[in-house]
Amino acid sequence: MNETLLMIPGPTRVSPRVLKAMSENIVNHRSAIFGKILSETTEMMSEVFQTENHSYMITGSGTAAMEAAVENILETGDKILNIVGGKFGERFMNIVKSHGVNSLPLMVEWGDAVNPDDVKNALEENEDIKAVTLVHNETSTGVANPIKEVGKILTDYDALYIVDTVSSLGGDEVYVDDYGIDICVTGSQKCLAAPPGLAALTLSNDAWEVVERTDSQTYYFDLKKYRKSGDAEPPETPYTPAVSLTYALNEALKVVMEEGLRNRIKRHKLAAKATRNAIKSLDLELFPKEEVSSTTVTAVNIPEGVTDREFRGIMRDKYHVELAGGQDHLKGNVFRIGHMGNITHRELITTISAMEMTLRELDFDVEMGEGVAAVADTYLPEDL
Amino acid sequence: MNETLLMIPGPTRVSPRVLKAMSENIVNHRSAIFGKILSETTEMMSEVFQTENHSYMITGSGTAAMEAAVENILETGDKILNIVGGKFGERFMNIVKSHGVNSLPLMVEWGDAVNPDDVKNALEENEDIKAVTLVHNETSTGVANPIKEVGKILTDYDALYIVDTVSSLGGDEVYVDDYGIDICVTGSQKCLAAPPGLAALTLSNDAWEVVERTDSQTYYFDLKKYRKSGDAEPPETPYTPAVSLTYALNEALKVVMEEGLRNRIKRHKLAAKATRNAIKSLDLELFPKEEVSSTTVTAVNIPEGVTDREFRGIMRDKYHVELAGGQDHLKGNVFRIGHMGNITHRELITTISAMEMTLRELDFDVEMGEGVAAVADTYLPEDL
Repeated sequence: MNETLLMIPGPTRVSPRVLKAMSENIVNHRSAIFGKILSETTEMMSEVFQTENHSYMITGSGTAAMEAAVENILETGDKILNIVGGKFGERFMNIVKSHGVNSLPLMVEWGDAVNPDDVKNALEENEDIKAVTLVHNETSTGVANPIKEVGKILTDYDALYIVDTVSSLGGDEVYVDDYGIDICVTGSQKCLAAPPGLAALTLSNDAWEVVERTDSQTYYFDLKKYRKSGDAEPPETPYTPAVSLTYALNEALKVVMEEGLRNRIKRHKLAAKATRNAIKSLDLELFPKEEVSSTTVTAVNIPEGVTDREFRGIMRDKYHVELAGGQDHLKGNVFRIGHMGNITHRELITTISAMEMTLRELDFDVEMGEGVAAVADTYLPEDL
Repeated sequence: MNETLLMIPGPTRVSPRVLKAMSENIVNHRSAIFGKILSETTEMMSEVFQTENHSYMITGSGTAAMEAAVENILETGDKILNIVGGKFGERFMNIVKSHGVNSLPLMVEWGDAVNPDDVKNALEENEDIKAVTLVHNETSTGVANPIKEVGKILTDYDALYIVDTVSSLGGDEVYVDDYGIDICVTGSQKCLAAPPGLAALTLSNDAWEVVERTDSQTYYFDLKKYRKSGDAEPPETPYTPAVSLTYALNEALKVVMEEGLRNRIKRHKLAAKATRNAIKSLDLELFPKEEVSSTTVTAVNIPEGVTDREFRGIMRDKYHVELAGGQDHLKGNVFRIGHMGNITHRELITTISAMEMTLRELDFDVEMGEGVAAVADTYLPEDL
């Protein structure tokens, strides 16, 4: 197992402190000692979600929580507004469809964010929309959607507001209660910098009301069971949880608390700005519109004359920096730099410097040090 | 986090070697290096399943794989024969029902195993049974069901044979291909002695045929997606897997291979026999019929005058040995000793000795050392 610097949009690097916590001995998952770890963890999750409501853990990927969020409110004949501007927006739509329920897709060009007015129009034109799904941070395109503004629109409608913050929570502003989010889901392996395998979600009272009256056809994802076990004393999970990953997430959340949520978001914003500045200084092009670009991942068009395979191959094999490629129709056309989790100036300098060298090796016209300087300039205090 | 000896029916103690493997740095889950670890892991899983077919990993608990096994073959109007003789047999039934499909339950008294003739009769009386579910090792009652004999019956019928080997695989005989099992599911945290959070399953060609033509209403558990990703080169999982748990299971399976599957089963059988001998020598009563008792967990009636709370409390708090209580209507009436995973003579001696002292403290008439001697006698070569 190598020492490659992971600059992909998750899973992100996990600190030795968290890895150490993960390797503690397994305890009985139905014991007071595990209950304490679980309740600490879900309380910290609620703090990160910025909600007064309880949070619940599901052993599974972020997609598991996306399905749980949707599946528990669905009934045949429902109509769901799925905002689709990338692979993960599409996923919400496909989850709805896989359950035989009508999806009303609101298509957004890849690289752009949804216009809240379009959400309003869709709601006006379709009175019976039961829920709206939105992916906050679309990692496939490097776009951050305006979850606050869409939330404002939704206050005038009955539709539940379901938001995927898998790749933004802990790195960008997600104020669940303030934004009126009814079901918010996230994953462990992105900005929270824990290993993958745990998902978390939180529900508003409105959402619980719908869940309670819905006869959802699911067993493992039945949120009523998660609530019953999770709100018990000591709290439990309905099925055997990933005990070790819970230790890890617990420790990772302590790191988040020590840094402070607002400081952590500030750090992510600075990293995103530094990355964009470096990209522009190297005459590379951002894939998304800059004004809607993500705080946690930067998608960049692969310049003419350079192939994805060579570029990311050299980055990985020669400089030990792993970047992500494009997904679906963007495969071969963009590369993506994840700057989420514990990323600081140090990792960005390494990454941008390796990019400069790699691009030069591939005959792309680049002045050594320009990107690195752009990173440094971004991090320097403005009054210097 | 304490040093309590875990003698519960899962999760089981994880060896330092496996914990160490788990704490390696996270790698990209869509990389050749992870693909290699994943393919090694699934190949070893197939070896443990004793099948020529591929195995697939799901991030989730054993219940996740139980639901995946059932959900992917279900269509409205189907009829499923659920053999129910304990909490986990019931779970299969509840999963079927939660999907709005007819369950035909074959009820077996808790503490007994299913009679294969009853399965035959049920199949004769109901021509249209699509699948039969059976829990091999019913941890709630300490019973091992005759999966080989039921498999023989099923060769004469079209019904798919779905077997839960969550708490038996790697500790008892599970020869998937020989027994004609169509879908076999297991978990990481029982006899395989890896941390909880990963489930595995394998499907026969017959099962895949049904899965392929079934329009199952699931997204996260869609097995067609697991096959497509898992059989790719390098293999992947459809959604971000629990990378660290995959490292751990990989290492735990290497331990299984080094010990040898048959040796491991032999060791489990010896531990079960030693436990039963100790129980009987202390004039305690087995909950299940002895001839159908489990190889991996022993359920014992709590003797009159002793409360579960006091008994397991002293065992845990004074002697640092954690036993499991009864589930559902057996709560307070039985305790359960898990002897799965890496359990040897050493752990059993500790456990039985602590039991003797605890029972004496609770005024139960016990001769110090008798149970311990019964364990030792079982482990000594027969010709001594």
